[in-house]
Amino acid sequence: MSRHFRKLLEHHWSEGRFVCVGLDSELEKIPSVVQQRNSDGSLAIKETIVAFNRAIIEATHDLICAYKPNTAFYEAHGLAGIAALEETMGLLHTIAPNVPIILDAKRGDIGNTNNGYIASAFDHLKADAITLHPYMGKKSLQPFLDRTDKGIIILCRTSNEGADEFQNLSIEGEELYKKVARQISTQWNHNNNCGLVVGATCPNELREVRTLVDTMPLLIPGVGAQGGSVEETVRAAKDSHGAGMIINSSRGIIFASKEKDFAEAARRETDKLHHLINQFR
Amino acid sequence: MSRHFRKLLEHHWSEGRFVCVGLDSELEKIPSVVQQRNSDGSLAIKETIVAFNRAIIEATHDLICAYKPNTAFYEAHGLAGIAALEETMGLLHTIAPNVPIILDAKRGDIGNTNNGYIASAFDHLKADAITLHPYMGKKSLQPFLDRTDKGIIILCRTSNEGADEFQNLSIEGEELYKKVARQISTQWNHNNNCGLVVGATCPNELREVRTLVDTMPLLIPGVGAQGGSVEETVRAAKDSHGAGMIINSSRGIIFASKEKDFAEAARRETDKLHHLINQFR
Repeated sequence: MSRHFRKLLEHHWSEGRFVCVGLDSELEKIPSVVQQRNSDGSLAIKETIVAFNRAIIEATHDLICAYKPNTAFYEAHGLAGIAALEETMGLLHTIAPNVPIILDAKRGDIGNTNNGYIASAFDHLKADAITLHPYMGKKSLQPFLDRTDKGIIILCRTSNEGADEFQNLSIEGEELYKKVARQISTQWNHNNNCGLVVGATCPNELREVRTLVDTMPLLIPGVGAQGGSVEETVRAAKDSHGAGMIINSSRGIIFASKEKDFAEAARRETDKLHHLINQFR
Repeated sequence: MSRHFRKLLEHHWSEGRFVCVGLDSELEKIPSVVQQRNSDGSLAIKETIVAFNRAIIEATHDLICAYKPNTAFYEAHGLAGIAALEETMGLLHTIAPNVPIILDAKRGDIGNTNNGYIASAFDHLKADAITLHPYMGKKSLQPFLDRTDKGIIILCRTSNEGADEFQNLSIEGEELYKKVARQISTQWNHNNNCGLVVGATCPNELREVRTLVDTMPLLIPGVGAQGGSVEETVRAAKDSHGAGMIINSSRGIIFASKEKDFAEAARRETDKLHHLINQFR
């Protein structure tokens, strides 16, 4: 059975699921109760990350529309971290076979070089979607855009402080992030496989982007720990069908408790966000 | 002895060395003469890439100012590729201990997440510099900018076809790439550790950037295989001391020959580029 990012996503949307759990499994924040040890007593990095992710995935997979591991938290640990990411991707396909996986890698290189990232994300890691930087333009990302089965999710208006430095610069009366949204919507999306990252921390920009991109999926970080309001986010981001949203929470869910109830706490926070979203859409 | 990217670079510049060898060691292009085999006869991926890189490094290290492995070509092979990159970084520190290593990773995430990429690039891989996307702004990249010993090299005007889609958009009479150059030069470079990527395929833009950034290092891909002229590049990119350039060639050097003379051919092409640069600066 061939997987198709957009179809998997739409299935979950049709059932009212819009939460994305960010597997930003920072080793230092993993509750001590799941720490695994090597025979010499040292921390077993790969095993600890995988054990933590397994518990989070088992506790949350029926409530959400996507998982989003961020590569930075895995690359931080060299080969052990990459191995943990590979095992996590395998677990996701086993435990949650219908939940699409967005690899939050924020890559972007020239055309032929991107084939390496494509092999990594889609062949080795078996992700269903990837996040990319727009700066080098459509032609550079064409090898990604050609993957009709995958989600190609481009940074548009990010949630971080200082994102406006370039993204909100005015180009002939229109901010750069709007130009990016417009180009992707009208020029890049021939395979109907594009999405955009727009932060919950800027609901005005979220609303502006939604008006430009019809039903394109918006990946929305920034609720919870970063302070974005769920109500404002949903009102600004939903499309004409009350869908189109992938609302991510990472720390707010996976590190909701540092104790042995961490998985139940993660489920509780996921469920809370799930209901809050549905209250406002 | 602590390493310092800018000082290592300036040492090589003072000796007239400006060539950067791009270790874009695409497995499929590695000459069959260096292919290593597993006991079952299959291609030994890690060993083949490392053997190839070793030969290239041994043949070129005294002629150049930097090496630049691009992570995409290594990530393409999963764990075996990452292991090949780690071993290559070790070889570089052993065979060419004074040549700075630029990890061409084109990363960029929000602040605290970037700490994972920093651990990967600087702690695990022991790179001296990294390439980054500017799109998320200075505040997102602050953890990189705080690393005074490292080179923080930001994409400004890239060499690929279609790079102008966003980079040449006009913002109040000035193109985005110039705005990026100006911001980095005046706002980001407090630690004198920034550099910019500007392609040899656009010498006019290269000249414009140089006028904006004084002696900031410019990492210049696009001579050779991508068609940039060395003469135009050097005339446009050199600073007031005839330096400031890291002129990269990847395929044109490392895949100069597919035969068993590939390492000598790489040296010959490196030497040719080295002399051409010095003829025009």
